[in-house]
Amino acid sequence: MTTTTNGNGNGNGNGNGGTGGGKKLTVLTKDPVADIIAITPFPASEKVYVAGPDGVQVPVRRITLTGGEPAFDVYDTSGPQGVDPHLGLPKLRAPWIAARKDSANQSQMHFARRGIITPEMRFVAIRENVTPEFVRDEIAVGRAILPANIHHPETEPMIIGKNFLVKINANIGNSAVSSTIGEEVDKLRWSVKWGADTVMDLSTGDNIHETREWIVRNSPVPIGTVPIYQCLEKVNGDPEKLTIELFLETLIEQAEQGVDYFTIHAGVRMQYIPLTAKRVTGIVSRGGSIMAKWCLAHHKENFLYTEFERICEVMKKYDVAFSLGDGLRPGSTADANDGAQLGELETLGELTKIAWKHDIQVMIEGPGHVAMNKIRENMDLQARICQDAPFYTLGPLVTDIAPGYDHITSAIGAAMIGWFGTAMLCYVTPKEHLGLPDRDDVKAGVIAYKIAAHAADLAKGHPGAHLRDDALSKARFEFRWQDQFHLSLDPDTALQFHDETLPAAAAKGAHFCSMCGPKFCSMKITGEVREMVAAQELEAGLAAKAAEFRESGGKLYAGSDDHHH
Amino acid sequence: MTTTTNGNGNGNGNGNGGTGGGKKLTVLTKDPVADIIAITPFPASEKVYVAGPDGVQVPVRRITLTGGEPAFDVYDTSGPQGVDPHLGLPKLRAPWIAARKDSANQSQMHFARRGIITPEMRFVAIRENVTPEFVRDEIAVGRAILPANIHHPETEPMIIGKNFLVKINANIGNSAVSSTIGEEVDKLRWSVKWGADTVMDLSTGDNIHETREWIVRNSPVPIGTVPIYQCLEKVNGDPEKLTIELFLETLIEQAEQGVDYFTIHAGVRMQYIPLTAKRVTGIVSRGGSIMAKWCLAHHKENFLYTEFERICEVMKKYDVAFSLGDGLRPGSTADANDGAQLGELETLGELTKIAWKHDIQVMIEGPGHVAMNKIRENMDLQARICQDAPFYTLGPLVTDIAPGYDHITSAIGAAMIGWFGTAMLCYVTPKEHLGLPDRDDVKAGVIAYKIAAHAADLAKGHPGAHLRDDALSKARFEFRWQDQFHLSLDPDTALQFHDETLPAAAAKGAHFCSMCGPKFCSMKITGEVREMVAAQELEAGLAAKAAEFRESGGKLYAGSDDHHH
Repeated sequence: MTTTTNGNGNGNGNGNGGTGGGKKLTVLTKDPVADIIAITPFPASEKVYVAGPDGVQVPVRRITLTGGEPAFDVYDTSGPQGVDPHLGLPKLRAPWIAARKDSANQSQMHFARRGIITPEMRFVAIRENVTPEFVRDEIAVGRAILPANIHHPETEPMIIGKNFLVKINANIGNSAVSSTIGEEVDKLRWSVKWGADTVMDLSTGDNIHETREWIVRNSPVPIGTVPIYQCLEKVNGDPEKLTIELFLETLIEQAEQGVDYFTIHAGVRMQYIPLTAKRVTGIVSRGGSIMAKWCLAHHKENFLYTEFERICEVMKKYDVAFSLGDGLRPGSTADANDGAQLGELETLGELTKIAWKHDIQVMIEGPGHVAMNKIRENMDLQARICQDAPFYTLGPLVTDIAPGYDHITSAIGAAMIGWFGTAMLCYVTPKEHLGLPDRDDVKAGVIAYKIAAHAADLAKGHPGAHLRDDALSKARFEFRWQDQFHLSLDPDTALQFHDETLPAAAAKGAHFCSMCGPKFCSMKITGEVREMVAAQELEAGLAAKAAEFRESGGKLYAGSDDHHH
Repeated sequence: MTTTTNGNGNGNGNGNGGTGGGKKLTVLTKDPVADIIAITPFPASEKVYVAGPDGVQVPVRRITLTGGEPAFDVYDTSGPQGVDPHLGLPKLRAPWIAARKDSANQSQMHFARRGIITPEMRFVAIRENVTPEFVRDEIAVGRAILPANIHHPETEPMIIGKNFLVKINANIGNSAVSSTIGEEVDKLRWSVKWGADTVMDLSTGDNIHETREWIVRNSPVPIGTVPIYQCLEKVNGDPEKLTIELFLETLIEQAEQGVDYFTIHAGVRMQYIPLTAKRVTGIVSRGGSIMAKWCLAHHKENFLYTEFERICEVMKKYDVAFSLGDGLRPGSTADANDGAQLGELETLGELTKIAWKHDIQVMIEGPGHVAMNKIRENMDLQARICQDAPFYTLGPLVTDIAPGYDHITSAIGAAMIGWFGTAMLCYVTPKEHLGLPDRDDVKAGVIAYKIAAHAADLAKGHPGAHLRDDALSKARFEFRWQDQFHLSLDPDTALQFHDETLPAAAAKGAHFCSMCGPKFCSMKITGEVREMVAAQELEAGLAAKAAEFRESGGKLYAGSDDHHH
C-alpha cells in the first residue's frame, strides 16, 4: 500500500471553493448553512490516504509525534474537508455503484453471498486491517453489515460487526420545538470530526425532507432514520391513520435520498403490548408507542410485521439495511429484561431470517436502561436469537438517577455490552431525558462513546487496539506533553486543562506536572529507579562474570571459539 | 425510630453564628477561609435526623415530592450546616469516645471482637438499614471498617465493606504549585455536599499541617492522608533521608490531629522493584516511588514493611485504619495485572493478617489503569489474598486515551469493580494526569463516582438501592419534572439543561418534553395504551362474565351467598 496526503490536514472549515460532488442543493428562503461554524483541524495531524490494490483510497489521520517516535495513524471518520455544503461531498462510490447497476438486488450481502468482493469491502478491509475475503464472509453470513445505499455515494465505507472495531452512532435532528437545518448540518460535521461512525437523523418537526437532504449530501458516514416519524408527520400526528402504503411510499422517498439504514419497529406485535401496561415506564420508544397505538386502535397485528416482505422489496433495491427497532425496550432499570422486551426480541430473530432470505443486511437494536448485572443476558440472548446479526444498543444506562449525566451512566453500560459483543453503540448525550442536544452535548456524547467503544476493543483484545493506549502512556511517562495531548481523543480539552494549572508554554516540556510540582514527581523518580536497577544489574552482571572467571580458573575463553555471546 | 428536622434544610451557607465544637482555629496572616463560597442547599430538601435507640441521631436528606408521592429519604454525607469554619463542626462523638477512654486499643475492630456494639456501630446500622449486630460482626471479621480516629469526634460514622453501600472518596489537597487552605476547605465542603463518603487530603506543598487542621475540624466524613508526603517535606524532598523514626513521629502528629486512615506503602518490597523497570509507565504511585528509591539507595528492605508492627502500635492507640497502599499499581493498561502489582498484593495480604492480629482496621488499595477484561481478576485475587478486607480502588481507568475525560474512563471501571465487590471507589476528576482539580472538577468527579457506586449497588441487588431509580423513573413517566430533578444526583444541572430547551416555568408541568414536542410524545401515547388495555381488559372481563353467566344457565349468584367478589 502507498499513501498520499492532502496538504491541509483534517478539518479545514467551510470553504466555498470545495470539490463538491453534484448540483447545488436548493436554498430555502434563507440559506440554512450561511452561518455554519467552521470545523477546526486536529493539531499535529494530517489526513493521509492509504491506497488499496483496487484504487480505493482510505483516509486515516496521521499524528506527528516528537522524541523520535514514528507518526501514529488513527481511524478517521471526518470525511473530505473544505467542501462547500451547498455542493455536498464528492461522490466517491459513484463509479463502483454504476458498475453493478444491473443487479436487481443491490445489497452488499447479496454480492458477498455470490462470492463477490466489492470495492466497498476492499475499502473496509484496509480500514480494519483485515483481508477483503474476511470482510466478504462476515457480511455473507450476516455477522456484519456494510450500510451503503446506492443513492448515498458520498459515504466512505464502514462495517458494523462483532469481529470489527466497535462503532458508535450519534443522533441528531430537529424537533417540533427547536433547531434549524444549519444547526443540524453543523452537528453532523461536528459528530464525524470527533469520531461518529454513523449518524441518525431523528428529525420530527417541519422540513424533515429538506433537513435530510442537506445531511445526506454532506455526510461521509452512513445515515440512519426512523421513517415512521415522517409518516406520522404526513398524517398530522395521528398514529391511527398510518397505513402500509404510506409507509412504503415514505421508505422509497427516503431511500431515493440515500438513507443507509432504517429503524423499523416490526417486532411490536399485538401479543406483547399488554405486557407493558404494568411497567414503571411503559413504552418509551417513540416508534414502539406509535405502532402500539395503531395496533390497539385497529385491533390488528402491526402492519410492519404482517407486510415485512413488501418492505424487504424496497430495502434490497437500494441496499438499505434494516435496523430492527426495539420498540418495547425498557425505559427504566425497573423494566429491564422483562417479557415485553424479550418477546419482541424473539420476533426480531424471526424477522432477521426473513430479511436474510432476501439477502438484506440486518442489525438489531437493543436497550436502553439495564442494570449491570442484566447486561450480559441481553447480549447473549440477542446473539442466540438473532444468530449473531450485529447488535446495536442505546447505552444501556446502568442507573436512572443521574439526568444531566446520562452520557456517563450509559457509557458504563455501553463499554460493557461492547466488550460482550455489541457491534455499534448509540450515543447518549448529557441532555438525554431533559432537552435537545446542542453542539457541546453532541461532542460530549461522541467522546464518551469513543471511550466506551475503545475500552470494549481493548477488552476484546482487538488486534492493535492497545497501540494507541501504549503510545499515549509512553508519551505521558516521558513527559512529552504535546504528544500526550495529540494522541488523546480530545487534544483541545487536554491542552486547555493543562493550561489551567500550568499555562506557561515551557511547562509543556517540563519533566514534572502540576499534581506533584517540580521538586518531587513519581515518574521522575521512576526514571531514576530504572537507572539504578540498570546499574545494579550491570554491577551484578560484572560480579557474576568475575566469579565465573575465577571458577573457570582464569581461562579467558573457556575453550570456546564463539566470541559472540 | 423517630425523626426530627432542623428547619433550614441541607446546606445553608457560611454563617458566622454556627454551633461549632471547640476553640477557634488559629488564623494565619490572612484568614484562609475569609472568602469561602457558601454551600447552597438542595432544592425541595430538608435535613432530618433519624433517632436510634441509644440516642444516636442519623442525618438523612428528605426530598419532598408532588403528586401525592411520599417524601423520599437519601443517605446524607453533608454534615451539619451553617457552622463557622473557624469553630469547626460539633464534636458529635466526644461523649462516646470519652466513655471508652480506658481501653489501650481504641479501634472499632477491637471492641467488635469483644462483642461490644459501639454507638458508632449503632449509627451506621441506621444509616445502612441493617442490625447493629451485623455491623459489629462485619467489623470483627475484618470484612468492613468504620474509620473513626478518637481525635476526630466531628465525624458522622460511616462504614466501608462489601456488604454495605458502595462508598466513594474524593481527593483534595494543595501542591507545591497551587491552591490555598481556603480553596481546600471549600473543596471539602463541596465534596461532601455532592456525596463524598470520605475525603483524602493529599497536600504536598507548604502549610501541610495547617491545611489538615482546617480540613479535619470541618469534616463530617473520615479523612485519609498519605503520611509519607509530609515526611518527604520534612527531609526537603530527599527520599533517601527518610527513617522509621521520622515516619512514626509524623504518624503521631497526624493521628493527634484526627486523621482517620493512613495510606501506607508497606508492600513495596525490594524484590518487586526490578519487576517495574520494563513497564511502559514504571512506578506511578508517589508513595511507591519514594519507597522504591529509598530501598535502592540503601540496598535495604522497605522500613514500612520491616517495622510494620511499630506502626501498628500507633494505629491502634488512635483507631487509625490502615489503607495499605498499592505503590506498584499499574500506571497504564499495558502494565495491568503484572508481576510487580500482584507481588505487592501478596505482601498486602500478609500485612493484613499482622494488622488484624493487633485488632487494627484495614482496607487495601487497588489500581489504577486496567482494561475491562482484567478487572474481575483484580477483585478476585484481592478478596482471596486479603481475606475479604475491604478493597479500595482508584477507578480503574479502562483506557488511557482520554485525558480530560478520565472521570468517565475510570467510572466505567469503578462501576464494574464495585459490582464485583470493591467497597470504596476513589474518584478521578477530569483533570487527572493534566492538572489540579478545581471546584468544578471535584463536583464532576464526585457525581461520576456516585453514579458508579450506585450502579454497583443496583447490580449487586443491594436491598433498597433500586427505590430511588424507581421513584425517579415514575416521576419521569408521569411528567413530574420537578420531582425528577429533585430525585436526581444533581438537581441544579438537570433543571438547567431542561431550561436550555424549554425555559418556561409552565414547561415544568408540561405533559411533553423537548425531544418530541407537544404534538407527539411516546410517554403520552403509552398512557393512552394503558387506558386502552385497561378498557379492553374490562371489556374482555365483561364478555367472559357474560359467557359464564350464559353457561351457568343465567343464574345470577351460582349458588353462592358471598356477594363480596
